[in-house]
Amino acid sequence: MTDAITNGNSPTSPAAPAKPVAARPVFIVSDGTGITAETFAHSILAQFEMRFRQIRVPFVDSVDKAYETAQRINEMYRTENIRPIIFSTLVDARANEILRNCQGVILDMFQTFIEPLELELGLKSMHAIGRVHQNADSEAYKNRIEAVNFSLAHDDGQSNKNLQSADVILVGVSRSGKTPTTLYLAMQYGVKAANYPLIPEDFEREKLPSTLDQYKEKIFGLSIDPLRLSEIRNERRPGSKYASLENCRYEVNEAEAMMRREGIRWLSSTHKSIEEIATTILQEIKLERDVY
Amino acid sequence: MTDAITNGNSPTSPAAPAKPVAARPVFIVSDGTGITAETFAHSILAQFEMRFRQIRVPFVDSVDKAYETAQRINEMYRTENIRPIIFSTLVDARANEILRNCQGVILDMFQTFIEPLELELGLKSMHAIGRVHQNADSEAYKNRIEAVNFSLAHDDGQSNKNLQSADVILVGVSRSGKTPTTLYLAMQYGVKAANYPLIPEDFEREKLPSTLDQYKEKIFGLSIDPLRLSEIRNERRPGSKYASLENCRYEVNEAEAMMRREGIRWLSSTHKSIEEIATTILQEIKLERDVY
Repeated sequence: MTDAITNGNSPTSPAAPAKPVAARPVFIVSDGTGITAETFAHSILAQFEMRFRQIRVPFVDSVDKAYETAQRINEMYRTENIRPIIFSTLVDARANEILRNCQGVILDMFQTFIEPLELELGLKSMHAIGRVHQNADSEAYKNRIEAVNFSLAHDDGQSNKNLQSADVILVGVSRSGKTPTTLYLAMQYGVKAANYPLIPEDFEREKLPSTLDQYKEKIFGLSIDPLRLSEIRNERRPGSKYASLENCRYEVNEAEAMMRREGIRWLSSTHKSIEEIATTILQEIKLERDVY
Repeated sequence: MTDAITNGNSPTSPAAPAKPVAARPVFIVSDGTGITAETFAHSILAQFEMRFRQIRVPFVDSVDKAYETAQRINEMYRTENIRPIIFSTLVDARANEILRNCQGVILDMFQTFIEPLELELGLKSMHAIGRVHQNADSEAYKNRIEAVNFSLAHDDGQSNKNLQSADVILVGVSRSGKTPTTLYLAMQYGVKAANYPLIPEDFEREKLPSTLDQYKEKIFGLSIDPLRLSEIRNERRPGSKYASLENCRYEVNEAEAMMRREGIRWLSSTHKSIEEIATTILQEIKLERDVY
């Protein structure tokens, strides 16, 4: 998998040659999926105004595969005449040694932190590969998948069954970001998240749907800027009353008034990613959750 | 957010006191959500046969919040009389300095890799905070949300509309893991993933649904061990024919025979997490995708 990250214009550093440069190759070498390493590397590289292309090499879980990867890196060094950057998370000492001898700049995300921790804890690490993500046969993993199924079954107020086993119930107007947030909470944290749309009937009645009354402490609200909401709804149903700015203003006003009246905590999703929304919700409702 | 990670029995290291120890506190301090740092820290800590409790402190994006966090760490050091371990990803130099002076063991995930990269690239980093995840207003972020909506709309063969814009179409028997995988592909990679259940009618006809014929190169199959499938289905519909081991064996056999006949690539989801399944699919269909 290759992707170019562009952070700005061409590099202006003294190290950059005069001719136009290709994006600098960055390898992410992992004995597992490499997803965590890749996301982390991406965030580090985003600090440089330079172009990179990230090449993920997952499942490097044998000495043979480590050799293959080292050869691939050396090949690229020969072709492009620049040292590739390697973010490595290999746990196996022999595989690691092979990679260390290749023609790249090694940033060892595993050993760098394992060594000081071994010293501090007075304990040797297990050097067991494939422990980054959960085992798919573990209870914790099954709980995550169950949470995803729960969130799907309780999307958009579809079902009132088992609402008592929900960890959180998101409320907000249609298209305020509830569904992607519930799915993210389920997938990343195994949080059972239901969601309930606030609709014009609720505003006329000036009350939350009665099924939600008993779950007040689990409810969290999402609001959104009416302009942005109108944009989003217009992509779905162009020119409809549903998408009109006037209607969006009305719904958002009513929804915020209701949340204030009912004492529901809420945030605006307008400029927030699902990661930011999910993190804020977990903080606010003080949910304790495992990490994956 | 606190969670205990148990990797085994109580520690046996010489550093461990004789009396029963509480789980060692680990802080994840980030100027963003801290999700990447948390997942990464979790994978490092999983290498030790010891109990930890991870405390995530997100959104530490000011000098004041850095002070607050340092105080919280010092307080815990005084109470528990053991140095907390700190995984830090603070980008701001002043905030970082404040944290460095606290009574914890600092593992600086940011500076550790930024410095060698600055040297290698001959370029100063921007030290811009909050660049880990995408901006929620960016095109790439909107594509991800669009992909989530696409995957939901094309779940379980619900819609044949716009199948031409799908990046991948997963096929497999009911409960083989298609839905969570499509949602993960969408959420993590912005991949538009549809899914299509293979049902007894397809097996009798001995052909893929005709709507899929033209999209052969995008199709990827999931299979599953019949025993595991029967377990999963029994949780949904206990004692049904649908869940019976006999029926599960029949469906899985027929589905695998069909995939072989049609030349569809497939994998068994039985012992794989959605991260592993998604990674393998991206490799196999050589999809190039951004990382989040």
